[in-house]
Amino acid sequence: MFTKLCRPVPSINFRTVKCFCKPRQLNKYYNIIARANCSASSSFLCDKNVIFVAGLGDIGLDTSKELLKRDLKNLVILDRIDKPELVCELKELNPKTKVTFMPYDVTVPIAESKKLLKKIFDKLKCVDILINGAGILDDHKIEATIAVNYTGLVNTTTAIMDFWDIRKGGPGGIICNIGSVTGFNPITQVPVYSGSKAAVVNFTSSLAKLAHITGVTAYTVNPGITRTSLVAKFNSWLDVEPDVAELLLEHPTQSTKECATSFVKAIEKNKNGGLWFLDQGILEDIKWDKHWDPCI
Amino acid sequence: MFTKLCRPVPSINFRTVKCFCKPRQLNKYYNIIARANCSASSSFLCDKNVIFVAGLGDIGLDTSKELLKRDLKNLVILDRIDKPELVCELKELNPKTKVTFMPYDVTVPIAESKKLLKKIFDKLKCVDILINGAGILDDHKIEATIAVNYTGLVNTTTAIMDFWDIRKGGPGGIICNIGSVTGFNPITQVPVYSGSKAAVVNFTSSLAKLAHITGVTAYTVNPGITRTSLVAKFNSWLDVEPDVAELLLEHPTQSTKECATSFVKAIEKNKNGGLWFLDQGILEDIKWDKHWDPCI
Repeated sequence: MFTKLCRPVPSINFRTVKCFCKPRQLNKYYNIIARANCSASSSFLCDKNVIFVAGLGDIGLDTSKELLKRDLKNLVILDRIDKPELVCELKELNPKTKVTFMPYDVTVPIAESKKLLKKIFDKLKCVDILINGAGILDDHKIEATIAVNYTGLVNTTTAIMDFWDIRKGGPGGIICNIGSVTGFNPITQVPVYSGSKAAVVNFTSSLAKLAHITGVTAYTVNPGITRTSLVAKFNSWLDVEPDVAELLLEHPTQSTKECATSFVKAIEKNKNGGLWFLDQGILEDIKWDKHWDPCI
Repeated sequence: MFTKLCRPVPSINFRTVKCFCKPRQLNKYYNIIARANCSASSSFLCDKNVIFVAGLGDIGLDTSKELLKRDLKNLVILDRIDKPELVCELKELNPKTKVTFMPYDVTVPIAESKKLLKKIFDKLKCVDILINGAGILDDHKIEATIAVNYTGLVNTTTAIMDFWDIRKGGPGGIICNIGSVTGFNPITQVPVYSGSKAAVVNFTSSLAKLAHITGVTAYTVNPGITRTSLVAKFNSWLDVEPDVAELLLEHPTQSTKECATSFVKAIEKNKNGGLWFLDQGILEDIKWDKHWDPCI
């Protein structure tokens, strides 16, 4: 079932590209593909500008640390709550990378997201990768779960298209969305959360297939059960299983560090449309069943 | 790929039921299963009380008409906008069924949903089936799409559990959620909509697996491209494909009547966990790939 190495080349259908793109867009897109193809190496992240939404979270923090080993140019962390001591710690890890923190709640109106992104683009000139990692796990909070895990991710993605979309003269970009294995098959005791993650997986697979139009490639990283504060204790839907956290943790899980290692490997693969399953040291690109085809 | 007949028996793992249920709940649940098993016939809907959210919509209206051929006891239609002439038409179709209309916007707070449901339960005493059919298709409207298609459906489902959950002394019930084939594989040009439908599919599959705890069974009906006013013209995400509606309609589609016929057949199958794919006269129970298992 599992493979350790995955194809580094984005799965682009060049025939489709030829059909749909206008010449100018096509050239830009070929450049993006060329960049993507040569990027599947450990030096891929070197000198890149990365925005990481929720880069101070449990998985976020260890992934930020792992990213900092790659000599990024800039790591801009957007998170709801400032944690100055953690930001200081990150800043000290690698003098080659400038780490910046800016407060951001993904549930703000999209106009606010665009304003914040404009500040970042004005300052850095270019951004290479956006990582959308904001998430909550509490099935007592239906609106918040959906607003953060799905609507917030869609809005942040939509907002950055103003700066990246090749149809607007942008340079393209890369979106890395944090899904979850529960987006493939749910933890039935948290149906609201699991459903929100299925939405992220499905949404991102569309983005990947729109790359020939927008110039923006996309993939999901989908961690298995990871020992975070999120998972240590959480509410099931209508309390169908009050001990859901304990029960989950009785089975093999991964540490946030293991998760972070696979996470950054997935980013380095840079595979458009990748559905990365990250669990206990395993990094696998899931193959999704085709049940129907809209033929367009 | 397609089969015309499907197993009418709910896919219940009795071993799981034995593990998790307390005796009283288990007895209740066996009764529900017994009901479900004997129900897969054309007389299943006879004398039933059904709540249909969005029962005046394009697919909703023809499905309401099809339901009325089955001699329901009550059909309570909840929809955002009253259309008195359509309600009158429905009332005249079958004198054995009492048709009632009540205004309902699925985006109201859950407390409002509970109030409305209380009125209905007070009046009818029991409700057998809830059909959640509210949906919009407009990828320019991110918040509204997610609020109606996913959050609204989750809230309405959660609200009715107050009256149905066997843990609260309720009698159990049946939830029929309208998903979409885009929940299996997206129409990439409407990623927000498709993602919201993936959420519905995933959410409902959890509900089905929680039936041994709640006494409430659940399945989705997932129409293929159906010639509705929704599909006649709609906005793609960031206008990635302005002609998405026209392109879709160039391929074989089904009428709302064809869809309604399959829809009611699916209801009559009454299969807990069913993932019904309804397209051009075909009714198939999709088998979902298992990519991982939380083991709880």
